[in-house]
Amino acid sequence: MGSFHGETLSRRLPATRLVAVADPAPGAAQRLAAELGADRAYTDAAQVWADPEIDAVVIAAPARFHAGLIVAAAQAGKHVFCEKPAALTLADADRAIDACRAAGVVLQAGFNRRFVPDWAAARTLLDTGQLGTPRLLRSVTRDPGGFDPARVAPGTIFLETLIHDFDTLRFLNPGAAAVEVFAVADALVESDWRDRGLLDTAVVTVRFDNGAVGTAEACFEASYGYDVRGEVLGSGGMATMGDGRRTGMVFSYAAGRMIETARSDQELFGDAYVAELAAFAAAVRTGAPPPVTGEDARAALAIALAAAESVRTGHPVRIEAK
Amino acid sequence: MGSFHGETLSRRLPATRLVAVADPAPGAAQRLAAELGADRAYTDAAQVWADPEIDAVVIAAPARFHAGLIVAAAQAGKHVFCEKPAALTLADADRAIDACRAAGVVLQAGFNRRFVPDWAAARTLLDTGQLGTPRLLRSVTRDPGGFDPARVAPGTIFLETLIHDFDTLRFLNPGAAAVEVFAVADALVESDWRDRGLLDTAVVTVRFDNGAVGTAEACFEASYGYDVRGEVLGSGGMATMGDGRRTGMVFSYAAGRMIETARSDQELFGDAYVAELAAFAAAVRTGAPPPVTGEDARAALAIALAAAESVRTGHPVRIEAK
Amino acid sequence: MGSFHGETLSRRLPATRLVAVADPAPGAAQRLAAELGADRAYTDAAQVWADPEIDAVVIAAPARFHAGLIVAAAQAGKHVFCEKPAALTLADADRAIDACRAAGVVLQAGFNRRFVPDWAAARTLLDTGQLGTPRLLRSVTRDPGGFDPARVAPGTIFLETLIHDFDTLRFLNPGAAAVEVFAVADALVESDWRDRGLLDTAVVTVRFDNGAVGTAEACFEASYGYDVRGEVLGSGGMATMGDGRRTGMVFSYAAGRMIETARSDQELFGDAYVAELAAFAAAVRTGAPPPVTGEDARAALAIALAAAESVRTGHPVRIEAK
Amino acid sequence: MGSFHGETLSRRLPATRLVAVADPAPGAAQRLAAELGADRAYTDAAQVWADPEIDAVVIAAPARFHAGLIVAAAQAGKHVFCEKPAALTLADADRAIDACRAAGVVLQAGFNRRFVPDWAAARTLLDTGQLGTPRLLRSVTRDPGGFDPARVAPGTIFLETLIHDFDTLRFLNPGAAAVEVFAVADALVESDWRDRGLLDTAVVTVRFDNGAVGTAEACFEASYGYDVRGEVLGSGGMATMGDGRRTGMVFSYAAGRMIETARSDQELFGDAYVAELAAFAAAVRTGAPPPVTGEDARAALAIALAAAESVRTGHPVRIEAK
Repeated sequence: MGSFHGETLSRRLPATRLVAVADPAPGAAQRLAAELGADRAYTDAAQVWADPEIDAVVIAAPARFHAGLIVAAAQAGKHVFCEKPAALTLADADRAIDACRAAGVVLQAGFNRRFVPDWAAARTLLDTGQLGTPRLLRSVTRDPGGFDPARVAPGTIFLETLIHDFDTLRFLNPGAAAVEVFAVADALVESDWRDRGLLDTAVVTVRFDNGAVGTAEACFEASYGYDVRGEVLGSGGMATMGDGRRTGMVFSYAAGRMIETARSDQELFGDAYVAELAAFAAAVRTGAPPPVTGEDARAALAIALAAAESVRTGHPVRIEAK
Repeated sequence: MGSFHGETLSRRLPATRLVAVADPAPGAAQRLAAELGADRAYTDAAQVWADPEIDAVVIAAPARFHAGLIVAAAQAGKHVFCEKPAALTLADADRAIDACRAAGVVLQAGFNRRFVPDWAAARTLLDTGQLGTPRLLRSVTRDPGGFDPARVAPGTIFLETLIHDFDTLRFLNPGAAAVEVFAVADALVESDWRDRGLLDTAVVTVRFDNGAVGTAEACFEASYGYDVRGEVLGSGGMATMGDGRRTGMVFSYAAGRMIETARSDQELFGDAYVAELAAFAAAVRTGAPPPVTGEDARAALAIALAAAESVRTGHPVRIEAK
Repeated sequence: MGSFHGETLSRRLPATRLVAVADPAPGAAQRLAAELGADRAYTDAAQVWADPEIDAVVIAAPARFHAGLIVAAAQAGKHVFCEKPAALTLADADRAIDACRAAGVVLQAGFNRRFVPDWAAARTLLDTGQLGTPRLLRSVTRDPGGFDPARVAPGTIFLETLIHDFDTLRFLNPGAAAVEVFAVADALVESDWRDRGLLDTAVVTVRFDNGAVGTAEACFEASYGYDVRGEVLGSGGMATMGDGRRTGMVFSYAAGRMIETARSDQELFGDAYVAELAAFAAAVRTGAPPPVTGEDARAALAIALAAAESVRTGHPVRIEAK
Repeated sequence: MGSFHGETLSRRLPATRLVAVADPAPGAAQRLAAELGADRAYTDAAQVWADPEIDAVVIAAPARFHAGLIVAAAQAGKHVFCEKPAALTLADADRAIDACRAAGVVLQAGFNRRFVPDWAAARTLLDTGQLGTPRLLRSVTRDPGGFDPARVAPGTIFLETLIHDFDTLRFLNPGAAAVEVFAVADALVESDWRDRGLLDTAVVTVRFDNGAVGTAEACFEASYGYDVRGEVLGSGGMATMGDGRRTGMVFSYAAGRMIETARSDQELFGDAYVAELAAFAAAVRTGAPPPVTGEDARAALAIALAAAESVRTGHPVRIEAK
């Protein structure tokens, strides 16, 4: 993700410049900086904070470093775009938010699905009142499989995958807060890993304070590709998002009618990855609030943590109002 | 088709009774009559005309007998539903129409596509003005293949297949008359039969007196099944008809997303075959004009004959106003 | 439903005869019997049990009478088709099942969705192994609204509506048993009735003993019509069911592309209502087991009762193996 | 189109540089050059030919200047990408092709539809043999309307609009040559302009030397937006291209199910406009033949000229093999 974002800053956005690439792995930053035409390559984040030419940073490190990097960036006066999850605990999320607020820098969270045209169009239907009040919501993420169960940390399905869906449920139920979460999860793809605690499939029910009920669902393997969909039933109608086609070409032949399906997140979301950084750049430039805030990151994290706890306890978990 | 219609009269329509089945082939009428619970089986049409219990007849004989049977039925005072084409020459069509008019009996032509929900819904959009004035029309018929080229009489593609499409173009351009026809046709499925005059694929352009242009297209083989579609572009928008799915179930798997396609006309049109006879029965009962008239049959025949002539001459052919 | 089934027995199925109609409301049975050509009209079920010409009965009474009527029918030696739910308690369901078994009569439950082509096709994909092992399932029922909240008995959403979805989840996870149920439900359509206990919207999570997780979802109002859909994600792929179109006609106009949606259950399920009685008639005739058994009715009821309890307690509820 | 191509060369393609902008209109080149960061602005094409830093040119002038500009560019040793139509007569097309060949420069024609994923995917089905031998083809272009009939030159519908469809038919019937063209055309959108020779709607039948028949259809107004579609029926099946959706979001509401439609060519083809220049840049760099040649431009022009003649004469027109 880091190199894609670097490419976006360097080549896809006319108004941003990629000043430096930082990566602790020996040689990695240098290689990428050379490839993307960045002036400097750093192995230590401190070099970034000290670089006066850098206005803003995009953080795509492992999740456990996110909160600390956000705080450090803020203290150095850099605006921050951080990949999800922005933190692994609510306390860390609060620290990161507070640091950015104190420093007066922008903090934008990497919930790219808000920038995908289908989802943005559904939100417009809510903003214009056409969808009415949300009653039932659904958000689905299915990866194409091929993962290594040994490398899936506990909590991954909630903190890395479903956190997108939790944000999506919030995005499509504007102004409402999640109040209760019930989750079931299991190792259904790699069932041999069940005893070692793998969770590769999950269904999460989220109740909101306006009565709406959301369902978030993930599976690490769909034989037909990368499948991300959503649905909102409101008092005014239903919006469905995510048609999953690779192209609009349809092939009818002896076996029936065939449509190619998307196989990677970049097929589905390449444009959204660019759009979220364009929005970040605009927020930095104009001082307007970013479209996805640190508070959004915290709220999605709260649902993810509650879901993980629900799986541990077998019971629904309340979310405390902040 | 005859036995399906017989079944409809006997079992599918509550208000009709199948009195008799007639078929010159020894034993055929008897077998079908027994199966369907008809009282009488005839081998000679004259027996039908003489049967006082028979109010109306459904003609599903070979096309070359249609006009004569219609005239005889009318003279016997029987209402007539006749499969397409109602005649093979315009003079015969006129004879059939005149005989029915003189006898005061209903004459309905077997253009079942008018009774298919998609097409009926498109016509409603025209009748309510939502589609506006038609500009471009398209009607497509593709059979699933497996035909015997030796048994395809010359003219079949126009007189038996495309005649449905010609009627459809007229149905969806209400009140307009065809004025010019240009056709190209060839043996593209069974190209070895080209020299023997087989035509298994055709494209026909039909100009109407309101300026609209229709395209009718047929092929005797589509590897994916039975494919009947239509399209109307009017000043108000476009209607498309015929989605060709067998069910609404969609299967996404390793190769992509698959939808089952229809493989037979009865899958697509079974209900329409019943609906056209229900409409005929209603016309007989109420004395109201039938929804598809002898004049409709004649007008579609005129286009079919012009198309055949256009293929022979290589030039567009004018259709004379009646 | 009773009069539709009566019409089916009388007119739509060639091999059944509607002997009698029974209804305690004065005159009701007589009117329907006359309309459908049934020989006899009864006001007392006992008259049905005593009628020697009656081989089988179709029960479409209020749910609280179902179990008692099944037992009585069985004791009279009549085969039984019973609308859902076949009983309101597991004990009653057991009594009904036992009575039918003891009497050697067929007991078929009214889960019509199994007979809808989309759902049957999905099941075929499971039976042939193409879908693989189910992992995630979804079943949705949304009514078009316009209900009277005063007439919605407590439990209706689980016992009358979602019971179809519970059976569907079982149908599409063949051989697996539900082991745990968590439900959230609320009055989101008629929220003024929340205090009086109305539940018009619900989401139910069902865990099965093979690990698969099903979500059943209902709402008594969808502004766009009658919406019934399903989805199965298996190790081999995904099947989706229920495309909700009224016809295949698509109208593109100034505002975009419009597809008519179904507005009633008979539009979606008319053919399935006939098919389930045809299957029942076949089971009676051949002695083969019916495609939906009393045990199926009991298993769906067990999920519905657990869902209602989960709403009362706020916690997941275990389902005991029978 | 010129400014979009300029933007592409300047910003969207990493490996090209926009050296200069040329436009005879006073100030126009200067404004665009400044906006896009080009070093030089010219008002005379001769300045371009003389500029040694320019390797290749993109021609987006009015069609009547195309051939002359191509010849001049070739003589100056510049590689040429030229918008359609590359010429208005076959003689001019030959001159342009010959000049480029003599100079050893690349000549690529601006048939962008070949670069749209749907169409490219259909071609892949042909190249791999899955579609089999083409039998029937269709290509449709409908603009969203709002044109000024006074500014539509005679021949526009064939030379500017349908020329894309003629190329598409050729692209999807690889290796075959058009042999006969029949066209009907009329002023159906702005019928008051019929007497002044306006043609805003046309249907063209194209026969190919392999027997396949193509239909190209255009209308300058579709109330629902910009509509470009295609279809190939081959012996192996059918490919359909162009689903016309703006997004995959579907809104179901009281009136039915609504899908937003595309309203501009850049919505449908923005990526294809970039892809064709990327392909041109690659051809210039590698010396490989461009994916759309001068010969392709000539062949599509021959069909367009034949179509115009067919409308004038009312008869089919033969195309001579070159």
